[in-house]
Amino acid sequence: MMLDERTARMALCALGHLGAPKLTRLVEEEGPADVWQALLQRGEESMWARRARAIDPAQIERETARCGARFLIPGDEEWPAGLDDLITAEVGEQTGRPFGLWVRGAPLPDLTGGVAIVGARAATHYGQNVALELAADLAAEGRSVVSGLAYGIDSAAHRGALSVSGHTVAAVAGGVDRPYPVGNLALAGMILRDGAVISELPPGHQPTRPAFLARNRLIAALTGGLVVVEAALRSGARNSAAWASELGRVLMAVPGPITAATSQTPHLLIRDGQAVLVAEARDVRELLSPLGAVPDSRRRDDATPLDRLPAELRDVREAIRAGEEVGAAVLAARTGLAVTACLSALGELGELGWVEQGDEGGWRLPGRCVPQVS
Amino acid sequence: MMLDERTARMALCALGHLGAPKLTRLVEEEGPADVWQALLQRGEESMWARRARAIDPAQIERETARCGARFLIPGDEEWPAGLDDLITAEVGEQTGRPFGLWVRGAPLPDLTGGVAIVGARAATHYGQNVALELAADLAAEGRSVVSGLAYGIDSAAHRGALSVSGHTVAAVAGGVDRPYPVGNLALAGMILRDGAVISELPPGHQPTRPAFLARNRLIAALTGGLVVVEAALRSGARNSAAWASELGRVLMAVPGPITAATSQTPHLLIRDGQAVLVAEARDVRELLSPLGAVPDSRRRDDATPLDRLPAELRDVREAIRAGEEVGAAVLAARTGLAVTACLSALGELGELGWVEQGDEGGWRLPGRCVPQVS
Repeated sequence: MMLDERTARMALCALGHLGAPKLTRLVEEEGPADVWQALLQRGEESMWARRARAIDPAQIERETARCGARFLIPGDEEWPAGLDDLITAEVGEQTGRPFGLWVRGAPLPDLTGGVAIVGARAATHYGQNVALELAADLAAEGRSVVSGLAYGIDSAAHRGALSVSGHTVAAVAGGVDRPYPVGNLALAGMILRDGAVISELPPGHQPTRPAFLARNRLIAALTGGLVVVEAALRSGARNSAAWASELGRVLMAVPGPITAATSQTPHLLIRDGQAVLVAEARDVRELLSPLGAVPDSRRRDDATPLDRLPAELRDVREAIRAGEEVGAAVLAARTGLAVTACLSALGELGELGWVEQGDEGGWRLPGRCVPQVS
Repeated sequence: MMLDERTARMALCALGHLGAPKLTRLVEEEGPADVWQALLQRGEESMWARRARAIDPAQIERETARCGARFLIPGDEEWPAGLDDLITAEVGEQTGRPFGLWVRGAPLPDLTGGVAIVGARAATHYGQNVALELAADLAAEGRSVVSGLAYGIDSAAHRGALSVSGHTVAAVAGGVDRPYPVGNLALAGMILRDGAVISELPPGHQPTRPAFLARNRLIAALTGGLVVVEAALRSGARNSAAWASELGRVLMAVPGPITAATSQTPHLLIRDGQAVLVAEARDVRELLSPLGAVPDSRRRDDATPLDRLPAELRDVREAIRAGEEVGAAVLAARTGLAVTACLSALGELGELGWVEQGDEGGWRLPGRCVPQVS
């Protein structure tokens, strides 16, 4: 019996062969149902066929329902658009968009304006405070904070977002019904209230080492940028950073004392020009897309009110009076912002359609008043 | 009576009009004696003429002798070659090679392989330890450490060099007979034993604010690279950094906790791509010229033994056997270094003439065995 696409994707996830180049390429090219059917029909000598035959999609559906999760597949309204960039990305031996995604918690918002914050489990007080404050600042302006629920930096990032009632998503390596590590169960519970715990492994699955690596690619793909706060030389954060670079996401790193081992990976990434040094939330904000400014393909609605813009953009926009054409220096005086900040804000506002350049080289309000942003 | 060039330069220095674009351009174009003569002959209404007529070169010579200093001018054997790059450099309102240089202490060695280390007076324990260790590491391999004798980072840099009996030079803003600040007199005394205190103002002169800025250009020009260890946003170190960039020196900065104001300038320089992040002496070493590898114009002797090369270069050179042509991967295996490190070492060794590229794309020992390095 041929499975429907959704069930086939569920079954493929249960194989646990995450980010495997050959399998994911096959699925993208031939479709999940055909690939699953072909897998089942392989001979007894095939390990994958034996594993596939042991998978019971009905059982997975029951477990999904039991833990209050839902299963998303590409094309679903709630499917995170950023994951589609994984189709062609490759780091190490891994590649590919996940076959599907289990989500527990609130409906996923558009995550492309969000930010991933990752780092060492064995973080210092310094690093945890930095992650906490960064996450709080960015979540407070409406950005979703994505991390991996690990101890240390990941936990601090989730907590920072929660501390301002912001949105946060935990991408975990095992099933969404058993967030890992167990010591973070209470944190996971808090995240589930307004945010979400997500995984490409079905409920009930234990995290494996390949699953941790595969999970890193999801964290890097979901948002517009990734910040590494603290990480020693050997650290999963380097893998996440490699994914962010590969995916063309903004890779950022927070420096720290050179005397701390946890500064090594951030410093390495900065020194080699892979990551941009960020020292405060403002730096991160300047590097990420303005909220709502997402690529065309990811726009799902329009008519965003002015007050959903970042404060700096909003201030500059509101300082322009109807009918006038005005320069950055005047706007700097009106807003109290630096001229360079005004110029940068005007550039962004221009791209978003909130302002347009006038005939005399200044800026004015556009004729049409509702810009095309999601 | 027309002064000779040396005395005219001495008198010009005593004017205290340091780094002044117009005057220094005149001196480079028309020669110090003519410029001095013309200055004296200006009318009574000229402030500069009045100042010039009050200067007594014989008196300056006596004071120079009294404090055991000597006066260098361009072309002298001991004249630091790096200062000549100042002729065409300009930062802010300042430009120009100093008219001359007072030196107290031991004869100046070739400083082009040296390193300048500068930073905040109000440095943290972290910053001072970093400066101390960096200076000690670099001085221990024979690099001269140049700084400004200020409290904080400067003092730590000098002390680091002294702690390994290394060479250090203090460029001060006032006369070399009265190193500023007074609290660092004992440190200046230690520096004078094997190193030197230098200034472009005559003995007896007090440092002025323009003199501090002018001094920064000397610190940046003397060596091959400048490291900013700690500096708040408003700091003389930014001026030194601007000079280093303008002069094409390697500009480096040590990161620190983002929670410290003293990290602001290093982080700014790194983020904006002006400075390279350095986290240990090894990073600095890789960015500076190998010791002895100075541009042609600065070579004063030749036939440097292999063991004066930095360890990494030496190791790679010694791993190449006579008669063979070999690739970086093989050398990496033989030396235990990374392939990228081997490639970078081979590039440097090639430039120095220690190795040459073979017909098959590998590297081999050159026919002639003594490369042309000073």
